[in-house]
Amino acid sequence: MKNLLVAQSGGPSAAINATITGVIDAGIESGRVGHVYGALNGIKGVLNENFVNLDEVCDTKEKRDLLAITPAAALGSCRWKLGNPKENAEEFEEIIRILRKNDIGYFIYTGGNDSMDTVYKLSVYCEEHNIDDIKVMGAPKTIDNDLGETDHCPGFGSAAKFIATAFTEIACDCFVYDVPSVTIVEVMGRNAGWLTAASALARIEGRKVPQLIYLCEKAFDEDRFIEDVNEALKKENNIIIAVSEGVKTADGNYVGEETKSGKEDVFGHKYLSGVGKYLEGLVGEKIGCKVRSVELNILQRCAGYMLSETDIMESRNLGAFAAVSAIRGKSGKMSAVRRISDDPYQVEIVLSDLSKIANYEKKVPMEWINEEGNDIKDELLTYLKPLIQGEVQIPYENGIPKRFIL
Amino acid sequence: MKNLLVAQSGGPSAAINATITGVIDAGIESGRVGHVYGALNGIKGVLNENFVNLDEVCDTKEKRDLLAITPAAALGSCRWKLGNPKENAEEFEEIIRILRKNDIGYFIYTGGNDSMDTVYKLSVYCEEHNIDDIKVMGAPKTIDNDLGETDHCPGFGSAAKFIATAFTEIACDCFVYDVPSVTIVEVMGRNAGWLTAASALARIEGRKVPQLIYLCEKAFDEDRFIEDVNEALKKENNIIIAVSEGVKTADGNYVGEETKSGKEDVFGHKYLSGVGKYLEGLVGEKIGCKVRSVELNILQRCAGYMLSETDIMESRNLGAFAAVSAIRGKSGKMSAVRRISDDPYQVEIVLSDLSKIANYEKKVPMEWINEEGNDIKDELLTYLKPLIQGEVQIPYENGIPKRFIL
Repeated sequence: MKNLLVAQSGGPSAAINATITGVIDAGIESGRVGHVYGALNGIKGVLNENFVNLDEVCDTKEKRDLLAITPAAALGSCRWKLGNPKENAEEFEEIIRILRKNDIGYFIYTGGNDSMDTVYKLSVYCEEHNIDDIKVMGAPKTIDNDLGETDHCPGFGSAAKFIATAFTEIACDCFVYDVPSVTIVEVMGRNAGWLTAASALARIEGRKVPQLIYLCEKAFDEDRFIEDVNEALKKENNIIIAVSEGVKTADGNYVGEETKSGKEDVFGHKYLSGVGKYLEGLVGEKIGCKVRSVELNILQRCAGYMLSETDIMESRNLGAFAAVSAIRGKSGKMSAVRRISDDPYQVEIVLSDLSKIANYEKKVPMEWINEEGNDIKDELLTYLKPLIQGEVQIPYENGIPKRFIL
Repeated sequence: MKNLLVAQSGGPSAAINATITGVIDAGIESGRVGHVYGALNGIKGVLNENFVNLDEVCDTKEKRDLLAITPAAALGSCRWKLGNPKENAEEFEEIIRILRKNDIGYFIYTGGNDSMDTVYKLSVYCEEHNIDDIKVMGAPKTIDNDLGETDHCPGFGSAAKFIATAFTEIACDCFVYDVPSVTIVEVMGRNAGWLTAASALARIEGRKVPQLIYLCEKAFDEDRFIEDVNEALKKENNIIIAVSEGVKTADGNYVGEETKSGKEDVFGHKYLSGVGKYLEGLVGEKIGCKVRSVELNILQRCAGYMLSETDIMESRNLGAFAAVSAIRGKSGKMSAVRRISDDPYQVEIVLSDLSKIANYEKKVPMEWINEEGNDIKDELLTYLKPLIQGEVQIPYENGIPKRFIL
C-alpha cells in the first residue's frame, strides 16, 4: 500500500488543523494507505524530507478531535513558491524523487492561492512527465476567503465569527461613555474585503454596528470618509468603523502608504499595517473628537476559542474529501464547497479545477457593496450568516484552552 | 423603605456588570430596599438625575444572569472627578439633594482608583456634615488590578484569562514558520504590570511563552532589551515578548515617548499606545529579523467569551456585599477580597478602608520580578493561577454571544 503525505502552507488559520485531521481520518479509515506522513513547514519540509508519522502521533480519535480544534498550523508552514518547471525542473525532479523514495502515492497540500499554485504546477508537471504513481490534491484554506471555485474557504467562518463577536464587544466597550467618539477597527484583507464585511454580522444583535464599513474593493476617498464620519456623529455619539487593511485610493495607492514600512514578502505582497492608525490621525486632525484605532491583527486568525462549528466540520470534510479522491485515483484538483441554499443552509463538497484557482483572488462582488462605498448590502449578510453558525465545545485545562502540541 | 442607587465609573471590564448584578440581587433579595436604581454614566448620571429602574429591567434571575456575563458597562461610565469639597461644596450639596429627592438611602459606586476617590470624598463629606440618612459604599473594579486593600480586583481575572489564552494562540500562530521571528505584544497597564505578568499564564501549556516579559515596574533599557532578544534568538527561532504599554526608561520617560501623541485625559493620564510598534522598529533596525507587534488593545478588557468563572462569581459577590453592608448601615468602605490560601484557593469578602485605596496604585512587588527585569518569578504565577480558573457557559444566538442590552 502506498503512503500518504500531507502538508500545509501560507498563513495560519483556526481551521487548517481541522483539514489536516480530515486527511488523517481518511488515510487511516480508508484501509488503502500505508502510513500518513506530515511534512513539516510545507513544501520545504518535502524538499528537506522532514516528515512526521501522523497515524502514530494522532492514533486515537481523541487526539485527532483535539488537533481539529487547535488553531494555527500544527505541521508548521512556509512561504515558498515553486519556480517555473520549464525553466528549472530540478526542484520538481527532487520532489518526485523524495516522494517515490518514501513510497508516497498521495500528496495533499492545504493552503491558499499561492499553495494552490504549487499544487497546480506539480500536478501539471506529473501529467506532462507521465508520472502516474503520485496523485496530487489541494485542499482549500484561507481566512481571506479569496479562493475561486469554492463558495467559501475553511478558516473564514471562524475568523468571521471572531470578527463579528469582537465588534459586538468593542461596541459594548465604546458605548459606555456619552461623549462623541470614533473607533476605527482595522481588519485583515489585502485585496479582498470578506473579513471586513464580516464585521456586519455584529448587527445580528440588533444594533447597527459598525455604522461604517470600508472594503478594499472600492476606492477610498479621505474627504468622503471624513464627511461620512461627520454625518454619523450627527446621529449617534459613538461611531465604530470597520476598514480593510488594504483599502486603496482611486489611483491605486494604499491609504496612508507613505506612513507604512513597505517591506515585501517573497510573493511580492506588501506587509500592511497602519491604515487604522493613519485614519485615527486623520479623524483627530479633521474632526478633533475622541478617536482610537484597534488592529485585530493575528488574533482574528488564531482564535481557537471562537470556532464556527460549521467551519470546523466543513474544513475536516474538505480535507477528507481531498484525501479520499486522491486514494481513488484523482489528481490535480482541489476539494471545494458548492452552496445549494442559504436557508436552510445546504452545501455539497465537490472537486474544482486548479487552473482556475491558482493565483486568482476572488473579491467581494461590487453589487454586494452599497453605492456610497461605506457599507455592505443585505445580500452579503445573507451569504455570511450561515458560515458562523454553531459553537465548538473547547476543553480547558488549568484555566486555558487545551491544545494539541505536536 | 429607602431606595438604592448604583453606578459605575472608569474603563469598562468584562466583570463590572457582574458586580452591578450583585448589587441588584442584594437590593431585591434584602426585602429592605424600595427600588434599585441605576445612574447612567456614573456620577454624571447622578448629577443629571439620569436614572433607570433596575429592579424593573432586571426583574428576573434570567435577565440578571445574562447581565452578569455581558462585558463592558451596561450603565455606561464617565471620567468625572469630584473636586475638593472644602473649596467647592456645591457639587456635593447637589448630589445629596438629588439622592434625598429620590429617597435614596444607599449609594453603591463601582470603579477603580479614581472612582474610589469619589466614594471617599462623598463619604467624608457626609460624615463631616452629619448626613446619616445616606450610606455610601464602594465596590472594586479594574482590569489593571492596581487597587490597594484587596487581594485582586474584579475584571482582572477575566482579562488575565484572555491575555493568557491570547499568548497561547499567538504562540500557535508564530511557531508555524521556521525562520527567526520576533513578536512583541503590548499589554495594557500604565503603571502596574499585573496584566502583562498574566501573559506568563500561557506557560501552563508547558511551553515557555512568552520568553521575555517586561513590566512597567522596572526601568526599561533599550540596549539590554536588544541583548535579551539576541540571546533568546540563539536558543529559539520564534520569540514572543510581552511588554506593558507603560514601560519607562530609568529617567522616568515612557519608552519611545517622542513617537506618541501625548494627549492627556481629565485625570492627567497620558493616552498611551505604541511602545509595541516602537520596539518593533527597534528590533527591525538593530537585529533585522522578521518582526511584528500586536496591541491587545480594548479586546483584553471586553472579551465576554473568555470569562473566568472565579472572577465573575467574586465580582457578583463583591457587589452584593457592598450593597448588603450599606443596607445594614455601613458607610465609607469598599468591599474587598482577602486571600486565605493559594492552593486550595480560598478567599473571604471583607470591607476595606477607602482612605487607603483612593488614588493609590498597587504595583507588582519588585520581589516577584526577576533581577534581569525580563521575566516574572514563580511566586507571581502562584498568585495569578487561581484567578483564571473556571469557565462560564456563554449563550449564543445566531452565531454570536447573546448579551444584555439595556
